[in-house]
Amino acid sequence: MMNRLPLAAALSLCLSSAIADEGMWTFNNFPAAKVGQAYGFTPDQAWLDHVRMASVRIAGGCSASLVSSEGLVMTNHHCARSCIENVSGLTHKDYNRDGFYAKTVGEEARCPGMEMNQLVEITDVTKRVQDATRDATPATFNDVQKATLAAIEKECGTSDELRCEVVTLYEGGRYDLYKYRRYQDVRLVFAPEDRIAFFGGDPDNFNFPRYDLDVSMVRIYGSDGKPLHNAEHLSWSDGKLKDGDLTFVSGNPGGTARELTMAQFDDERDDKLVRDIALRSELRGYLTEYGERGAEQKRQSNDMLFGTENGLKVFTGRHEALSDKAFYGQLAANEKAFRAKVMADPALAQAYGGVWDAIGELVRKDEIYRTEYTALERGIRYSSLFTIARNLVRHGDEVAKPNGERLREFGESRLPQMKAVTLANEPIYDELEIATLTWSLTRMRADLGADSPIVKRVFGKRSPAQIATDAVRHTRLKELQVGAHGNAIGGYRKALYDGGKAAVDASHDPMIELARALDPDARAIRKKVETEVDGPMKRQQELLAKARFAVYGDSKYPDATFTLRLSYGTVKGWTEGDHAVAPFTTIAGAFDRATGADPFQLPDSWIKDKPRLDLSTPMNVVTTNDIIGGNSGSPLVNRKGEVAGLIFDGNIHSLGGDYGYDPALNRAVAVDSAALLEAMDKVYGAGRLVKEIKGSPTKLAADKVPTGQ
Amino acid sequence: MMNRLPLAAALSLCLSSAIADEGMWTFNNFPAAKVGQAYGFTPDQAWLDHVRMASVRIAGGCSASLVSSEGLVMTNHHCARSCIENVSGLTHKDYNRDGFYAKTVGEEARCPGMEMNQLVEITDVTKRVQDATRDATPATFNDVQKATLAAIEKECGTSDELRCEVVTLYEGGRYDLYKYRRYQDVRLVFAPEDRIAFFGGDPDNFNFPRYDLDVSMVRIYGSDGKPLHNAEHLSWSDGKLKDGDLTFVSGNPGGTARELTMAQFDDERDDKLVRDIALRSELRGYLTEYGERGAEQKRQSNDMLFGTENGLKVFTGRHEALSDKAFYGQLAANEKAFRAKVMADPALAQAYGGVWDAIGELVRKDEIYRTEYTALERGIRYSSLFTIARNLVRHGDEVAKPNGERLREFGESRLPQMKAVTLANEPIYDELEIATLTWSLTRMRADLGADSPIVKRVFGKRSPAQIATDAVRHTRLKELQVGAHGNAIGGYRKALYDGGKAAVDASHDPMIELARALDPDARAIRKKVETEVDGPMKRQQELLAKARFAVYGDSKYPDATFTLRLSYGTVKGWTEGDHAVAPFTTIAGAFDRATGADPFQLPDSWIKDKPRLDLSTPMNVVTTNDIIGGNSGSPLVNRKGEVAGLIFDGNIHSLGGDYGYDPALNRAVAVDSAALLEAMDKVYGAGRLVKEIKGSPTKLAADKVPTGQ
Repeated sequence: MMNRLPLAAALSLCLSSAIADEGMWTFNNFPAAKVGQAYGFTPDQAWLDHVRMASVRIAGGCSASLVSSEGLVMTNHHCARSCIENVSGLTHKDYNRDGFYAKTVGEEARCPGMEMNQLVEITDVTKRVQDATRDATPATFNDVQKATLAAIEKECGTSDELRCEVVTLYEGGRYDLYKYRRYQDVRLVFAPEDRIAFFGGDPDNFNFPRYDLDVSMVRIYGSDGKPLHNAEHLSWSDGKLKDGDLTFVSGNPGGTARELTMAQFDDERDDKLVRDIALRSELRGYLTEYGERGAEQKRQSNDMLFGTENGLKVFTGRHEALSDKAFYGQLAANEKAFRAKVMADPALAQAYGGVWDAIGELVRKDEIYRTEYTALERGIRYSSLFTIARNLVRHGDEVAKPNGERLREFGESRLPQMKAVTLANEPIYDELEIATLTWSLTRMRADLGADSPIVKRVFGKRSPAQIATDAVRHTRLKELQVGAHGNAIGGYRKALYDGGKAAVDASHDPMIELARALDPDARAIRKKVETEVDGPMKRQQELLAKARFAVYGDSKYPDATFTLRLSYGTVKGWTEGDHAVAPFTTIAGAFDRATGADPFQLPDSWIKDKPRLDLSTPMNVVTTNDIIGGNSGSPLVNRKGEVAGLIFDGNIHSLGGDYGYDPALNRAVAVDSAALLEAMDKVYGAGRLVKEIKGSPTKLAADKVPTGQ
Repeated sequence: MMNRLPLAAALSLCLSSAIADEGMWTFNNFPAAKVGQAYGFTPDQAWLDHVRMASVRIAGGCSASLVSSEGLVMTNHHCARSCIENVSGLTHKDYNRDGFYAKTVGEEARCPGMEMNQLVEITDVTKRVQDATRDATPATFNDVQKATLAAIEKECGTSDELRCEVVTLYEGGRYDLYKYRRYQDVRLVFAPEDRIAFFGGDPDNFNFPRYDLDVSMVRIYGSDGKPLHNAEHLSWSDGKLKDGDLTFVSGNPGGTARELTMAQFDDERDDKLVRDIALRSELRGYLTEYGERGAEQKRQSNDMLFGTENGLKVFTGRHEALSDKAFYGQLAANEKAFRAKVMADPALAQAYGGVWDAIGELVRKDEIYRTEYTALERGIRYSSLFTIARNLVRHGDEVAKPNGERLREFGESRLPQMKAVTLANEPIYDELEIATLTWSLTRMRADLGADSPIVKRVFGKRSPAQIATDAVRHTRLKELQVGAHGNAIGGYRKALYDGGKAAVDASHDPMIELARALDPDARAIRKKVETEVDGPMKRQQELLAKARFAVYGDSKYPDATFTLRLSYGTVKGWTEGDHAVAPFTTIAGAFDRATGADPFQLPDSWIKDKPRLDLSTPMNVVTTNDIIGGNSGSPLVNRKGEVAGLIFDGNIHSLGGDYGYDPALNRAVAVDSAALLEAMDKVYGAGRLVKEIKGSPTKLAADKVPTGQ
């Protein structure tokens, strides 16, 4: 499946015109006419608004859609894994292994820390943002822009119900304010067993033919504690999806990097991706063997292993794309052509001719800081307790500052999300925490070097294992009292959050002390990178964006930014070498593929209910929709605006999609809507859900669908 | 420390003239006059012969030297790790942790599978080899050459006492027959504790300042079961090594790749090294956590972890070198200049102008086969039992064929080594075997793909864990009876070896069955690679070698090939950034650096005996000698031909030495001979050894040393 976390924002501008079904389009710049010309169906504004309002984003990094008028949300199983794991941990069950189904509304179980966002408004704020930084120096650019964005977001009125984010599009060519409705009470309704949700496991991940039921259903509850009553949602398709059918995907692609300069592509290929691959390879080995400690340890670590293996495939696929001579050569040719056009026009050459070299210089500077930055700012992200401790330490410091001067994630508009994450009632497993923290500190010491003054000061004469064991065993950050709906109402952790700087400063909690000991150096290198690299880079990116608007116009889609996009395409197989890959698989195929041993073992429920299943039901399907990690959980929508499937993956060629779209090979992978109903009905006896889904017509009824031109 | 296994043979020819102290010179082409001009000392033939005959190679992949007239051999601790681990496993001790010292000759302990080689003769066979393949087609080249080399080696008379190897130098520009005396009875005499041998562990590995006593002493025994009585050995230096002193290193650099074409360098950077890094990262994580199962599991897996982490640093360092724009740019400029010279001469252009493109094509073909080749031919190398099983299966098949048609490692001249390895009495740990075999099979399945017919046939419905557990638990290959000196005299494994094809074919041993199931496909892809890539590549390399002799003459050193070389240099620090690194550390420094926690914990023995030690004794030293993995264990020799130190590592910049030598930064790291004696004498009470070493004068006594020009 796709990467669940948004990637780093892309950095420059793409060159070739969008071709074929390429593009992750913003809803306010969708090429409806072009779709109409190609496929005889032109989505009108009502259709677009409907699909947009029925789409929801999972703040942690996935997409989803409303599929009933009572707040029922469909997303992937792998997008709800943490929730399922947390619910399991709190109730001492293993719902990832066994599946979960709430027979009644009363059994629906709160997902700690899960937040849903619904995009309700987009406003262009480009002029205000660009004007603010017009006179900034490279060194002050980042701070000035940060303050401007924070001010806009605050004015917009972020609250527990509203989330405002200024989104950088076209790498600074455009800034839009996105206003989301926030939903923080999300409850688990249905999830099948891991064995069918992720049938084929890591070996089949990003491959096709495929036989996964990668679905989960959750429900949004309003602040009144009742299921959300919503008008906008997607109806379920009655019809059968067929080869060649037009399809749309509405979701939140996490990030693409199609508009980097060659200096940045080289940096990706030769440094960043190799670090990413090495890190995840090591963690994969570590967690695989950790799971051998026992069934419970395996359950606790499985979600992390899953994300790690998925990331490893993603980064490996990207590296392979950039290492492909033809692919890389095309990128180089694009840049060459773009530069030539800029240099051929004296005015453009004067204004923008120096951008590529300037970016190259900034990349080299970034490389110098990278090891220290990564070690200190990102090095311990696999420990929940350390992450909580760091959030608390920084929260105390940051909220004392004016909004515009804070670290961006502590700005007023982002504080509610920070609070929710820091005080989420997720289970903490001491043994796993000690293991990941030991591992993280060992890596940090190796990366910084044993002679580093930071290492000497923070580690002293203690080993990583000693530090980790002491901090995990004795920290009181595990102390958290929760209310009826899982929200924090007391405990040491909440006291430190509410008590702010004074409370945190007074704390001698060993995890707080560890975070505090590392924080000055972490902040210092982050400040250096933001001032010396990020700020000047944003400036250069803006120039590059302007150059590309000047040369190519603005009828383009921006790089993905984990914001809502719409892509269009068709159901279509592809040719792998000399072998044609058909676009559909069937339920029968899953039984053929099963070996009886993980990851090719079907759940008992499927084996038991096989006789009742219509084995010819389409299981998974591929389309040409242009998607990327973050799109996981997106609905696959037909021209009627109905659910025709559920995106959960891309094929192996889609991994190069980070840098470019290949219409011949790049495919999205979805669960067919027919398989979803067949399984919920016949295997899981989830009649209540089937009825709710099917009995919930939308405003956009079939007879009102626009029919094109 | 350095990589202990020889690397893949390098493939083309270097371009720039050797500068400064660069070069891993063959003993029959040592630039003595050049050294004399630079340093006022010209080694004469007697000096060269003496040093050569006192040098020994460890067949498994290290260097060493004779340091007494009674067969005493000095090498690194990390070169004897397997031996120490094996002796521990057979006696249920932990000598890697606790150290080992045989107070008497009688206590010296046989090292299973360890073989020493002493180079006694070099013969040029270039004409015969090149003539044989003159009329071969690209497709037959490999087979014809293999048969020729096997014939030459057989004629030379390989036996239990003699080892003959045709060495490809200058990538086929020259072929030399190397004749070695073989010693297969090697016994452990002395090894300090891990904590001082590898003080600083992985974090300090390839770094400097450094404080390691990375030494072990073993003894060669003759076929009469008595210590080898040998005239040629190195005396121990009385003097003190000083900054600027001329030093030599005599040893077996495993492999360099300084003469690749750019197509090959790109392949290294973008594919091969990234695979190497990912594999070792994963195994590192896996073994690290495996060691957490318990102290005994940690001991059993520690040697493998050590090799894995070492390899990871090596490959990462190489990747960084090739990703360095300046370094890469220099390689590209070298090739450009070389090609220009070839193309400027019509005759050369006609003969050699097409070589670069031809090699590029072969690289692309190699990339296509790489995943399958690696999975099937190299994928299970971390399981001892599987390796034994495959050796037995292939041994049965191969010895039935004529010598020239066998897989190269089963040729007559190589059979004794194959037999020794396959029947070595190394301890087998079921739990570790199951873990590594499960891991290997899981990777193999992922690499080949679950849909691969090979996977379907070999795995069937069984999981990797099931296959591994069954094969390890029930194999009888563990049954091996050994004689008084550790040599195999009976048991199932020996019966299958002696019984050949008939015995192996009749066996239903599950490990044999696994090896047999994989073998046809493994052989098929190997044959494809050898015929379609390796053979044509050798042909192109020969052409490239000829082109370079034509353009640059032949006063060059060939790429390293794990054969005996001599390098020269001086004791010299370097400048790291704006910081000068001094060439010596002292014993005092080790105590300063100790934290009390691994890997910075000193052994109890050192802490106890600290008051008796002369803390000002030089501990480690860096020199400009051009070395690489395989040189581990090489003596650092002064102009008198005496032991002045013991090479055990390079600095971090030496890792780029695979592709080129940078005199400003590239440094070899050695234990100072003074620290060796100080520790053996005062910490380990190894008076018997100190006396043997110091009381063993050589033919090349100080007063007979040639004094230059």
